[in-house]
Amino acid sequence: MKNSKSYSLLEELAANPYDLTQAKALEGRFASMKASVMGIDYVYACQRVNDDVVDALQKLADETAAVSQFSRMMGGEKMNKIDGFECEDRQVLHTAMRDVFDDLPEGFLSDTEAVAGAKTEIAKLKVFCDEIENGAITNAKGEKFKEMILVGIGGSDLGPRAVYLALKAFAVEGRKVHFISNVDPDDAAAVLKDADLERSLVCVISKSGSTLETLTNETLVASNFEAAGLNTKDHFVCVTGKDSPMDNPAKYLRSFYMFDYVGGRYSVTSMVGAVMLSFGIGFDNFMGFLRGARKIDLNSQERDVRKNVSLLMALIGIWNRNLLDHETLAVLPYSQALSRFAAHLQQCDMESNGKRINRQGEAVDFATGPIVWGEPGTNGQHAFYQLIHQSETVVPCDFIGFAKSQYQKDLDVKGTSSQQKLLANLIAQSIGLATGKTSENPNQVFPGNRPNSMLFAEQLTPEVMGALLALYENKIAFQGFIWNINSFDQEGVQLGKVLANEIIDIFTGKDVEAINAKEYLKTLGL
Amino acid sequence: MKNSKSYSLLEELAANPYDLTQAKALEGRFASMKASVMGIDYVYACQRVNDDVVDALQKLADETAAVSQFSRMMGGEKMNKIDGFECEDRQVLHTAMRDVFDDLPEGFLSDTEAVAGAKTEIAKLKVFCDEIENGAITNAKGEKFKEMILVGIGGSDLGPRAVYLALKAFAVEGRKVHFISNVDPDDAAAVLKDADLERSLVCVISKSGSTLETLTNETLVASNFEAAGLNTKDHFVCVTGKDSPMDNPAKYLRSFYMFDYVGGRYSVTSMVGAVMLSFGIGFDNFMGFLRGARKIDLNSQERDVRKNVSLLMALIGIWNRNLLDHETLAVLPYSQALSRFAAHLQQCDMESNGKRINRQGEAVDFATGPIVWGEPGTNGQHAFYQLIHQSETVVPCDFIGFAKSQYQKDLDVKGTSSQQKLLANLIAQSIGLATGKTSENPNQVFPGNRPNSMLFAEQLTPEVMGALLALYENKIAFQGFIWNINSFDQEGVQLGKVLANEIIDIFTGKDVEAINAKEYLKTLGL
Repeated sequence: MKNSKSYSLLEELAANPYDLTQAKALEGRFASMKASVMGIDYVYACQRVNDDVVDALQKLADETAAVSQFSRMMGGEKMNKIDGFECEDRQVLHTAMRDVFDDLPEGFLSDTEAVAGAKTEIAKLKVFCDEIENGAITNAKGEKFKEMILVGIGGSDLGPRAVYLALKAFAVEGRKVHFISNVDPDDAAAVLKDADLERSLVCVISKSGSTLETLTNETLVASNFEAAGLNTKDHFVCVTGKDSPMDNPAKYLRSFYMFDYVGGRYSVTSMVGAVMLSFGIGFDNFMGFLRGARKIDLNSQERDVRKNVSLLMALIGIWNRNLLDHETLAVLPYSQALSRFAAHLQQCDMESNGKRINRQGEAVDFATGPIVWGEPGTNGQHAFYQLIHQSETVVPCDFIGFAKSQYQKDLDVKGTSSQQKLLANLIAQSIGLATGKTSENPNQVFPGNRPNSMLFAEQLTPEVMGALLALYENKIAFQGFIWNINSFDQEGVQLGKVLANEIIDIFTGKDVEAINAKEYLKTLGL
Repeated sequence: MKNSKSYSLLEELAANPYDLTQAKALEGRFASMKASVMGIDYVYACQRVNDDVVDALQKLADETAAVSQFSRMMGGEKMNKIDGFECEDRQVLHTAMRDVFDDLPEGFLSDTEAVAGAKTEIAKLKVFCDEIENGAITNAKGEKFKEMILVGIGGSDLGPRAVYLALKAFAVEGRKVHFISNVDPDDAAAVLKDADLERSLVCVISKSGSTLETLTNETLVASNFEAAGLNTKDHFVCVTGKDSPMDNPAKYLRSFYMFDYVGGRYSVTSMVGAVMLSFGIGFDNFMGFLRGARKIDLNSQERDVRKNVSLLMALIGIWNRNLLDHETLAVLPYSQALSRFAAHLQQCDMESNGKRINRQGEAVDFATGPIVWGEPGTNGQHAFYQLIHQSETVVPCDFIGFAKSQYQKDLDVKGTSSQQKLLANLIAQSIGLATGKTSENPNQVFPGNRPNSMLFAEQLTPEVMGALLALYENKIAFQGFIWNINSFDQEGVQLGKVLANEIIDIFTGKDVEAINAKEYLKTLGL
């Protein structure tokens, strides 16, 4: 990236970024600095960019062939690799999981085999959902299932959970979903205390079929079912890779497949999210969610950065991270339903782009993925916004908002609805962070020039949620393509696994070297 | 801070910080680099410090009179002020809320009046709890209350919620607590759908008695009670400042007081946390929680940084933030019960120390409070740990762990319990981040030298939870004292409030200038 012509140009422009605090700095920008897709507006008027910067960012995208890389990814090119070194060496085809609507525009790429695989699983899922609905599948007493316990971790937990919470307002009447992820036994204990096991399905998810936490929790949950006199085969379904150790039809009521070309953190639109979401919010709502994601994938193949929202988000992120040197990104949804969306994006972004070598195995000489964090507003306003407004540490922010609430159970207090109050706060924060405020009292000075964007839609529906998810997934992929890093492996999680196994060996009394671990355990009295 | 002698010494030492990746770098450090209080171990062997650095940090604490400032705070000195400028101008006495055990050592300071106020409220609460328990207070049908809905935001929500979740394993049988905080109407709608209103108490919390979100939610909840034919006066209690607009005995079943010298983010041990926690986990457990916090307050008056755990945590934080230039701090509890603890600390720390002027109103020339974020392990290992291990962005980490689970419903799988697996992962991460790993494959290189600490206790009991909370509260106060900033006001939240009110005025059709807001609303179609 750094040796591209456009990057030098960007460095020149970054010496004097747009000053959002000057008089009338924002006037006229809201109408023009907006990109829209599917009725979702991305407003970047409060970023420290002007048209010259956006033009230079377009050049950067062109020089790095960002859109072409994305299209080739969708077409099945092996993008998960490091030239000359051992790596996962795989295609990257989470986009195929939603390429199931027979809507391929001419000239767009698609991986036929992956799409066929996705369609097969969706068809199996449809049958399963219908059978639960019409009572062809029931518990031993012939009662319909009304709860589901999802057992998974990481990509098999965070994303599905975030989306379920986001769309809980659309839950099928009388149905409920629980989540167990942490190997902490208290996590499972708390859920098992609440759930009605007799009327519960359990959905166990592990691509490898060997994830330690998930297998441990599956065993723990199964022992509870058995203790209650229930046959696990009547209750347990699995989502796993074909031929994994978990792919055992004798053990599960039903098995759904995930594929090695779908990374865990990108798997929400695969069976990983599909089984639970179809149960919880209904199959049709799940398909709406998928359709939203698909529409964004198509939009992501647009060359013009002013029309390709994911790409624009990616480039503005690069401007903030590399040119203005801001280390973090706060994602601030003004929607309680999105309470875990930031946590999912934290995973998706940081596991993808928290890298230090490029796709040729050389150390990069620039910053890569930001630290992503955030909580819903207005709650955050009563918490960490103090630092965002008045500290010298600048935190770029993504605001997310909706014109209408989901439940539509609102109340006018003093002439405005709660939703209006929520929106008023959202817009106020966006403007205030940008413009700042002067004062005679140094404690009341707001320096301003805190860059922020707004993602805005009419309502948080399944389709809009699918779109939001894909906007960020694709943004992350674009940043990786432009940085020339591999966003799709996760070697950084391996060392911990190796060391943890050594310590488990110590606990089981095996003869292990591991001086550090032994001294550590001793000092903790273990 | 920067002009102190010890700071120059620290700068010299920081030019060549301890290298955790060298051969045998950790050997012998675990036993010696540990500070303990109340059976809680703080292990800092994996920080980039050696004895010289700790000695220099001790000098910094001495030069800035950190401990004396803390003691004077507890004694009632007005610490919430900016010399020469309008400010809240108040005492800071959240510590008095737990100074109720008549255990004052000779020579230690205490604010008699604040302590008396705290004792009065606790005595009122005890009576209230007994009456709920013995049926002297019931609903109109004479049934005992079994649920409580907490309505608050910011400090009146995050901290109490985090502690309730942490101690839910100790919940009174059959009792349940719900939380409504966000002005997002869907937040309240989701809770009201779940709660059994007839058997629910509602605890409304607002110090000023005028918090917009809380009043709006109170009205919304009240309208649901009325619609169900319930008299709110039989169900609603409040926690507010004396003589606030909410202090209206005619309206509430019971009123509890909070004091202007207890900041929202430091109010968990005041009635803000007390009423809900006493209901949810029982009065005695709440008092255990308070006792844990009190013991840490006493420990915080120890001069020796190797014995004063909060102070040591503060100083190591300053070393990482100011000397090694790390912008964030990840708090990583290996305990699902602490799922919201990082969010609470994010609030407490960032609202306290996200400041840019000192207590004389001058701009500071060094970094202040870090960005605090985090999620429980092992979940995080499957998410953002990639970046922590392999990106060039260094993230100091605080790990938190326990020898025993809370529910003690564990299961051996392959020779180890879940709790042992959890601990194995915890220790593995701490060591791996510090030492790193070399490899021929650049993708498998772990640079190491990622500084981290461990807080470790036998079990997460009410007393330990009180201690953990106070350790961080006091750490934050110490950092503010050493940086010479006012950690106790929050002017940075004001601008957003002013602008939000302008936009609410636009919604209600008032004649408002606010060009930016109008253009913004227009572009969003509002």
